Amino acid sequence: MRTCYTGDVNKDHLDQTVTLFGWVHRRRDHGGVIFIDLRDRAGLAQIVVDPDNVAAFNTAEHIRNEFCVRITGLVRLRPEGTSNPELASGGIEVLCREIEILNPSVTPPFQLDDDNLSETTRLTHRVLDLRRPQMQRNLMLRYRVSIEVRKYLDNLGFIDIETPMLTKSTPEGARDYLVPSRVNAGQFFALPQSPQLFKQMLMVSGFDRYYQITKCFRDEDLRADRQPEFTQIDCETSFLNEVEIREIFEGMIRHVFASVQNVALPASFPTMTWEEAMRRYGSDKPDLRVKLEFVDVGDLMRDVDFKVFSAPANDPASRVVALRIPGGASMPRSEIDAYTKFVGIYGAKGLAYIKVNDAAAIPEGLQSPIVKNIHVDVLAQLIERSGAQSGDLIFFGADKAKVVNDAIGALRVKIGHSDFGKDNGLFEAGWQPLWVVDFPMFEYDDEEGRYFAAHHPFTSPKDGHEDFLETDPSQALAKAYDMVLNGWEVGGGSVRIHRAEVQSKVFRALNIGAEEARDKFGFLLDALQYGAPPHGGVAFGLDRLVTMMAGAESIRDVIAFPKTQRAQCLLTQAPSPVDEKQLRELHIRLRSPEVKAAQ
Amino acid sequence: MRTCYTGDVNKDHLDQTVTLFGWVHRRRDHGGVIFIDLRDRAGLAQIVVDPDNVAAFNTAEHIRNEFCVRITGLVRLRPEGTSNPELASGGIEVLCREIEILNPSVTPPFQLDDDNLSETTRLTHRVLDLRRPQMQRNLMLRYRVSIEVRKYLDNLGFIDIETPMLTKSTPEGARDYLVPSRVNAGQFFALPQSPQLFKQMLMVSGFDRYYQITKCFRDEDLRADRQPEFTQIDCETSFLNEVEIREIFEGMIRHVFASVQNVALPASFPTMTWEEAMRRYGSDKPDLRVKLEFVDVGDLMRDVDFKVFSAPANDPASRVVALRIPGGASMPRSEIDAYTKFVGIYGAKGLAYIKVNDAAAIPEGLQSPIVKNIHVDVLAQLIERSGAQSGDLIFFGADKAKVVNDAIGALRVKIGHSDFGKDNGLFEAGWQPLWVVDFPMFEYDDEEGRYFAAHHPFTSPKDGHEDFLETDPSQALAKAYDMVLNGWEVGGGSVRIHRAEVQSKVFRALNIGAEEARDKFGFLLDALQYGAPPHGGVAFGLDRLVTMMAGAESIRDVIAFPKTQRAQCLLTQAPSPVDEKQLRELHIRLRSPEVKAAQ
Repeated sequence: MRTCYTGDVNKDHLDQTVTLFGWVHRRRDHGGVIFIDLRDRAGLAQIVVDPDNVAAFNTAEHIRNEFCVRITGLVRLRPEGTSNPELASGGIEVLCREIEILNPSVTPPFQLDDDNLSETTRLTHRVLDLRRPQMQRNLMLRYRVSIEVRKYLDNLGFIDIETPMLTKSTPEGARDYLVPSRVNAGQFFALPQSPQLFKQMLMVSGFDRYYQITKCFRDEDLRADRQPEFTQIDCETSFLNEVEIREIFEGMIRHVFASVQNVALPASFPTMTWEEAMRRYGSDKPDLRVKLEFVDVGDLMRDVDFKVFSAPANDPASRVVALRIPGGASMPRSEIDAYTKFVGIYGAKGLAYIKVNDAAAIPEGLQSPIVKNIHVDVLAQLIERSGAQSGDLIFFGADKAKVVNDAIGALRVKIGHSDFGKDNGLFEAGWQPLWVVDFPMFEYDDEEGRYFAAHHPFTSPKDGHEDFLETDPSQALAKAYDMVLNGWEVGGGSVRIHRAEVQSKVFRALNIGAEEARDKFGFLLDALQYGAPPHGGVAFGLDRLVTMMAGAESIRDVIAFPKTQRAQCLLTQAPSPVDEKQLRELHIRLRSPEVKAAQ
Repeated sequence: MRTCYTGDVNKDHLDQTVTLFGWVHRRRDHGGVIFIDLRDRAGLAQIVVDPDNVAAFNTAEHIRNEFCVRITGLVRLRPEGTSNPELASGGIEVLCREIEILNPSVTPPFQLDDDNLSETTRLTHRVLDLRRPQMQRNLMLRYRVSIEVRKYLDNLGFIDIETPMLTKSTPEGARDYLVPSRVNAGQFFALPQSPQLFKQMLMVSGFDRYYQITKCFRDEDLRADRQPEFTQIDCETSFLNEVEIREIFEGMIRHVFASVQNVALPASFPTMTWEEAMRRYGSDKPDLRVKLEFVDVGDLMRDVDFKVFSAPANDPASRVVALRIPGGASMPRSEIDAYTKFVGIYGAKGLAYIKVNDAAAIPEGLQSPIVKNIHVDVLAQLIERSGAQSGDLIFFGADKAKVVNDAIGALRVKIGHSDFGKDNGLFEAGWQPLWVVDFPMFEYDDEEGRYFAAHHPFTSPKDGHEDFLETDPSQALAKAYDMVLNGWEVGGGSVRIHRAEVQSKVFRALNIGAEEARDKFGFLLDALQYGAPPHGGVAFGLDRLVTMMAGAESIRDVIAFPKTQRAQCLLTQAPSPVDEKQLRELHIRLRSPEVKAAQ
């Protein structure tokens, strides 16, 4: 049996005989001696095979990369000057006594330490890709995160209760994955988009504190970093208010960072209303590492002789903001041009700016194509309100509020993360968590001409906002909260509605009629009638959280067997055609003749 | 905020003011005072509302069963003679100071303590059903089992790695649940029947020790205690042999029983070959609590003048066994008749027996319709071999081996569990774990005229049995093992094939051609070529394990939201019809006009 993991052999084993299992990471011949870097999930160790040991040497000569072997040998110090401080085992080597090939390997299609592999190659050969030390570390990290989440929640009396995977389709929100029923002809299960209603029903059942680390499913067009199935840390508790719930779960994230990565997050996470976040950062998930803020200047621009500014300044659905870039006056024209192009992605039609060469000399100290269009008094007020100093640059956004928020919000982040931003102290590295609270209950959809739930339809309005549900839904704020970390929403939740009549009012505000509500959510409305407790919860996206902690580029790097953006598994070739017999049993047939022909 | 759970208030809180949240389990007026049994997940506490406290009393008068309330009050001793030793809180009561109705309840459709509810009622009103203390205890127990499993495995270096839910359909074994792909028209995902191949690939990737507590899916006709989705404790490890693997996982079960239920299972579980289990008990999952065993007597019966015995005794595919029932001579004829009927369920055409009134007087001391057909020498040998004593009864099974094993095996268990069995020391209560090992690799299917994998096609043959794969598959034994507990298979596993050429041989023995093997399992065959390590594992059925530990009647009692035997969720009404638009997006249509019309 194994003495310990290969990567864990160290000076404590000096002069001991150890047995190691692992894979040949590299083999080299040097001065008639064979050196093997043996690898397992814990890391590497150097094995020395001396030609004196004829049997072992002969075997070692046949060994190639990725062979799986058992090695027995004596642990000794590496010769002076050859130790490798980057490895736990770097001070020692194992003098091979016996070597057994447990399984040979054909030549791998790529080198494991090649960092320039295409994603297609990596996902097609995922079994080998997962041998790469970085992927091993990522999945270990993911595991440590999940087990520490469990420990924390277990300590607080949360219990893991499994909810169904074969559930009811409720076409609200995202598109469902459907599962045809064989026994109930013509009917379908849906895979859960979240266990939302089940966890609420568990609260009504009196379980008090629930959690689950569970798969959720959304059949959406996959953006760069989405997966058809993703993992949620899903939690719910009864009898606590919004603040108490947030305290529990920021504690959970603090515990995870402290225990897994030895990182101390703030003892209390700052809280910001949605309104303030949108005002200051144009985003409901601001990256607080970036030390730049929006300054609203619409009121100053109402009467300027420059339609680009005055039109939005006079439109309540629009917004005019300044974004001061300290030291930005030194930015070359080419960089400004690049940013102008960049904001175009978000629908901005241009990117006005003022270089503040001398803040005390207005207007001649200001360099900009637009200065001539703006009265000197307004310029002075702009400089004052934005706090611009000599040497700064001010960018402007003026458009529909959504365009300004998206474009200037993205610009803010891009500049902060740029070399310029880092060189000029506009970016503070580290972890910057934040709660964004007091979200609106509803968002109005112009196309469909109705309100949609900003969070989900089971979110409680703030105290005192219940009447807005009937008078002016746009005014209603919700007991909803998102945890934001470095510009990513890592979790979100809300206090739920626990009274049937409030739930009915929300359905009405969403234009869901009584009959439709009963048809889709009757079981929830029923449940609420039986003394449902006040309750609320949160769900964290495990994939995203681990991606950030791992410093990985994509959530696909923290998922063992992910799908491509075409929702395919390149390893197993799923999805795939199925037998006609299977379809017949499920009472379905393929739709178009072309699809059938393609089979 | 809550002082503690309602069920946890006790004498330590004496003279303290506590705040409790919970549900009104029962309210009674007694001598002008209102008593409320308040309930939460931890249990009950008695609340006393005195008429002197006018505000609280008025509120309490309006309170009905299942109202959700907050109560603040003073903990005091119950008056002498009124304490309830069955409750943790039974020595105290809470004198109500303040009571707040958090949410009223309409009258529930049934009393929570009604033990005679139909399953339909319980599953339709599952939210209330789950409030029943027994269901709360069951799901808490399930949670404790799962968290202790995790602790044990974590300590041994197993890591939880999530495998996909949207996988490839491989129509071997059970029927798949299919999920139509929207992006890849005409193609389908399958929900996993188990993560078998993914966990093997994780071993090839070098993760060394894996576990997952995960949902698996089988679209089978539901027997009494099956669910379309069920939960598996799924484990795999590299570099260990069969015995080492079993030691780890019997340790896990020992840990779970010790930590969750304070039950000490044997320090080492007995091991029995499949052959021995079938021979002695007619079952590969014998209930060892039952102290009855088969005795093969075919060799004695070959020449008897009684075809019922002699025909099977001369047929190699048949079996003749005796089952001695100590003290059974006192069994009334009616009971024997009932057993005769019972074995008929399993295909037995009758149930021969001999009452041994006097074991020393052969044949006159033997009472049986068949004695006259059997030579006295044979009778003497039967008595001797079966070990029958005066006062015993011997049942006989003689038929195709499967019929005998099923019928007499079931009879053995039934008699053991009967009042007769318990009164006569044929049943030993407690937990009787057992490993059944050395399963055959293959079972021959007469109808299809080919071999099927007894475990699954990735199971390794025993050392020395590899040649049988090509010469005589029926002789090949497998490195497969089942953990049996009180007659239930709670887990099973095997050492896997880690060499591609052995895997190919097994596919050939299973009549899976090279092309088909590559099409279905190419990714596995590829993976095995890259230095796959020796590996093996096990999977436990969590639902079944917890059902047994809870002493529940059905796995539906340890699953929060189970499906009926028609695979329906009575609470949410899943499955259900879906919109035509959804089907169109998935490139499918309903098959028969009748099905469509039924929509």
